[in-house]
Amino acid sequence: MRASQFFISTQKEAPADADIVSQKLMLRAGFIRKVAAGVYSWMPMGLRSLKKVENIVREEMNRAGAIEMVMPVVQPAGLWQETDRFDSMGAELLRFKDRHDRDFVIQPTSEEVVTDIARAELRSYRALPKNFYQIQTKFRDERRPRFGVMRGREFTMKDAYSFDRSAEDAGKSYDNMFAAYCRIFDRLGLTYRAVAADTGAIGGDRSHEFQVIAETGEDAIVYCPTSDYAANIELAEAVAPAGERPAAAANLVKVHTPKVKTIAELVDFLKVDITATVKAIVVEGEKGEAVLMLLRGDHELNEVKAEKIAGIKKPLTFAAPAVIKDAFGANPGSLGPVGFNGRVIADRTVAKMADFVIGANEDDQHYTGANFGRDCAEPEVADLRNVVVGDVSPCGNGVLDIQRGIEVGHVFYLGTKYSKAMNATFLDEDGKPKHFEMGCYGIGVSRILGAAIEQNYDDKGMIWPDAIAPFSVVICPVGYDRSEGVKAAADQLYADLQGKGVDVIIDDRGERPGAMFADWELIGAPHRITIGDRGLKEGKVEYQHRRDAESTPVAPDAVLAHVLAQLAR
Amino acid sequence: MRASQFFISTQKEAPADADIVSQKLMLRAGFIRKVAAGVYSWMPMGLRSLKKVENIVREEMNRAGAIEMVMPVVQPAGLWQETDRFDSMGAELLRFKDRHDRDFVIQPTSEEVVTDIARAELRSYRALPKNFYQIQTKFRDERRPRFGVMRGREFTMKDAYSFDRSAEDAGKSYDNMFAAYCRIFDRLGLTYRAVAADTGAIGGDRSHEFQVIAETGEDAIVYCPTSDYAANIELAEAVAPAGERPAAAANLVKVHTPKVKTIAELVDFLKVDITATVKAIVVEGEKGEAVLMLLRGDHELNEVKAEKIAGIKKPLTFAAPAVIKDAFGANPGSLGPVGFNGRVIADRTVAKMADFVIGANEDDQHYTGANFGRDCAEPEVADLRNVVVGDVSPCGNGVLDIQRGIEVGHVFYLGTKYSKAMNATFLDEDGKPKHFEMGCYGIGVSRILGAAIEQNYDDKGMIWPDAIAPFSVVICPVGYDRSEGVKAAADQLYADLQGKGVDVIIDDRGERPGAMFADWELIGAPHRITIGDRGLKEGKVEYQHRRDAESTPVAPDAVLAHVLAQLAR
Repeated sequence: MRASQFFISTQKEAPADADIVSQKLMLRAGFIRKVAAGVYSWMPMGLRSLKKVENIVREEMNRAGAIEMVMPVVQPAGLWQETDRFDSMGAELLRFKDRHDRDFVIQPTSEEVVTDIARAELRSYRALPKNFYQIQTKFRDERRPRFGVMRGREFTMKDAYSFDRSAEDAGKSYDNMFAAYCRIFDRLGLTYRAVAADTGAIGGDRSHEFQVIAETGEDAIVYCPTSDYAANIELAEAVAPAGERPAAAANLVKVHTPKVKTIAELVDFLKVDITATVKAIVVEGEKGEAVLMLLRGDHELNEVKAEKIAGIKKPLTFAAPAVIKDAFGANPGSLGPVGFNGRVIADRTVAKMADFVIGANEDDQHYTGANFGRDCAEPEVADLRNVVVGDVSPCGNGVLDIQRGIEVGHVFYLGTKYSKAMNATFLDEDGKPKHFEMGCYGIGVSRILGAAIEQNYDDKGMIWPDAIAPFSVVICPVGYDRSEGVKAAADQLYADLQGKGVDVIIDDRGERPGAMFADWELIGAPHRITIGDRGLKEGKVEYQHRRDAESTPVAPDAVLAHVLAQLAR
Repeated sequence: MRASQFFISTQKEAPADADIVSQKLMLRAGFIRKVAAGVYSWMPMGLRSLKKVENIVREEMNRAGAIEMVMPVVQPAGLWQETDRFDSMGAELLRFKDRHDRDFVIQPTSEEVVTDIARAELRSYRALPKNFYQIQTKFRDERRPRFGVMRGREFTMKDAYSFDRSAEDAGKSYDNMFAAYCRIFDRLGLTYRAVAADTGAIGGDRSHEFQVIAETGEDAIVYCPTSDYAANIELAEAVAPAGERPAAAANLVKVHTPKVKTIAELVDFLKVDITATVKAIVVEGEKGEAVLMLLRGDHELNEVKAEKIAGIKKPLTFAAPAVIKDAFGANPGSLGPVGFNGRVIADRTVAKMADFVIGANEDDQHYTGANFGRDCAEPEVADLRNVVVGDVSPCGNGVLDIQRGIEVGHVFYLGTKYSKAMNATFLDEDGKPKHFEMGCYGIGVSRILGAAIEQNYDDKGMIWPDAIAPFSVVICPVGYDRSEGVKAAADQLYADLQGKGVDVIIDDRGERPGAMFADWELIGAPHRITIGDRGLKEGKVEYQHRRDAESTPVAPDAVLAHVLAQLAR
């Protein structure tokens, strides 16, 4: 490509409403342009990277045996009513009426349409397994769109759906997709982790998120540096501390704690270590009754775990002040198990504590030296909390660390959730109809670009992996319009690189060197060759990787090989 | 591709609600699947052809210097209000509100969004010319969707928009796109015509439709077989008959013509040639007054031409019965110029007629032997009618013929219509802001597939041009699962063709030969090689083009070259 025939539009400043680095850089570098909140045009520069991501995803999906198709953006409500999602989904599902007053939605995903296809087209077990995918425009009417293409409303998603005869076969389809996703993210050149995720009502252990590692990520990823273990924070198990609970050594003492409402205030007031304190959280049971959950003072409740406990109201509901007052005789800030007759669930860590500090169920009163079994009954024990750095890994082979990540892919075993709701069956070998075992597999194609930038940027701009850079190589001739020698050398290298199939752009716009370099540093082309008169006289051109602090002189007749070697790394 | 790893789903019968051949065949061959009225999923087989069309369009657009981008499917009403299209477009424009009650549309085209980009990004004449295009999902909420992908609601369209400094430069952009379109339709392998079309309020001569020739086409295309002249019926000029008007030879005679209301009845009653009759059509002038238009009895009014005449109400409005009675003293069926004091416009053919038959402005009365200048004033003369087969071509080099066509592309000079409405300007060389001169260029990507089928099918199914067939070549091994010799020969040919970059599928499903052949004839793969045990023993395999009545035996070691030669034709 010649820059003069392309469209390059960079800006010094990002719009004031840009939230995060990737959004600012994509706007400044002319990758995207805002059309409405959460709705963007893909400008020519950005579209090149988007298409490269799409192509890698497509190639690996095809390699994995998935079959591409395209389902409509506009989908009739009827199908969505079969699964109840038309009514049960929130306002993220954009609903509208057509000119004949019929209800439609704009697809956020396509489970209903693909399941409708399967029940019509996959009539026999001989047609299975099948995996259909599309790379297509999706819409989610986010309440508060932000972060550019990372949490936009209109976006490009690859969604795949597998259909199998049995849960066992569905497991193979799942593993196949898992492996394909690893190949995809490897090829994209991104640092990522596949982390186990919650399966919700479906159950089982077949849900993984693919997370691009970035300090700015919204998600906490738990992993064990000395093993393969990785899970998102919702799922990561907090194992019980080793050893037995110490014996009670202190007496139960009621302490007046005026105006102490929080754990921080309690620690400050009593001058105790936070790890000696226990906090009380009251949620509703299935009958609306108060259930007391106990966590160590420095730990956080994991709502996904808490909600899964039998007898707890779903979705998890914190008890109202009146319910609490009625059950405990005190207000939040001074609650505890001593004297409470309801259900008490202690986190595994709490269950191993002795002589702890806890609310006394009287306002402005706490106990020190509290002990289970002596001062109150032994509680139920459950994993209630988010893990923290340094926790023992549930794999048993190390301690946990936590990174931030951006979710860009998800593989999920659906079981028969949709096939039963839509009565989608095939005839099995025994001649009997059977519901499809399904899986769904998403990749946020446009989101990947945001994530790639969050992972790879500096104060000058983006730094693209070769595979998804808008251009892998840029040739920056200094004085292209003035020096015949520069023009000849630059044109020759351009032709040579094109001949080798390299995605190269030559900046023939005649910009000043400073502006030209700033543009390409902002755009983040990974490999740059600068060709100028002075260098040519000295028998050299300059190669610089976007991550290099300085350029490397290379002889003009060696530069082609040099660039190809860099690209092959 | 191996058929066993692909998705082939053919049906013997098309759904009862399919209107036309292409729709029936696409449904039967598993190219598309209906999701709602005018909304289809592209099944894997159909998507292959769709992608091939897209790629040809993309390559030629890029070659022409157009730059790809993607504008959103969901667009904010604000931009559409700037051009008034939000209010003035009909119900085809799908409007909806988002969760925050803000108005949006689903794009039917993207003039507003691209003009908004241009006014922000193309600030200087140095940035011009530019041509941006997208290949993207569009939606038009057709009142009565039909004909499958030919008049669907959701469809894929390539839309391009050019921005120029001057009308002259815009003309160059137009010519450039015109040439690109010719290359595109040449490469698609379709028989087509570029026909001049009406420019409406924009004026000028820069509007061409690209029409795929098919007997089932909705549009009438006028062309001159002995020149390049081609226009759609709305635009095609009907030239005046050669020579002078004959002198009046008959006397004006009033004839009682009871119950004669139509030209057919008049011809039958008077036993005259229809070409001796003149029919009267009354339309409203700008002030609501009756204007009489005269056409030869066998000719049809061309409403587009009639509406363009100065002083005629726009849109063209036929006069109400009361207005006619008032102006002529008679009812329709007996109207004419004799004794009428209002404006009279005669078609060019009528203006050359003498001694004609015409209504006498008395109910059930006609005149024979009527003549202009003697019996009534000389009329205004204009081109008012649709051309007919055999008319002299306006090019002067032959006579006109008429074909049916399907519009699949349109190039259109927009001038400053949108740039003025949205105040989209650039700074010209003189430092002054100037409105962009624009053009728009559409190709109905999904519609092309329907048109290609309407042009190429037989009673067995579709017949694809090589370039856009879902697979160019199909290998049909008879007994693939039973005969090692057949399997080896078929696999070898498959590998050889793949090695040559041919888009080949091997049907390894183990279907019976009859079912297998029927599938591929329905799907329309242009080149088929059948390999069976009997043939191999006789030292031959069978090659058959989809249009061939019979297969051609070819030696197994010559078949690769034979197929490649057929593909190169």
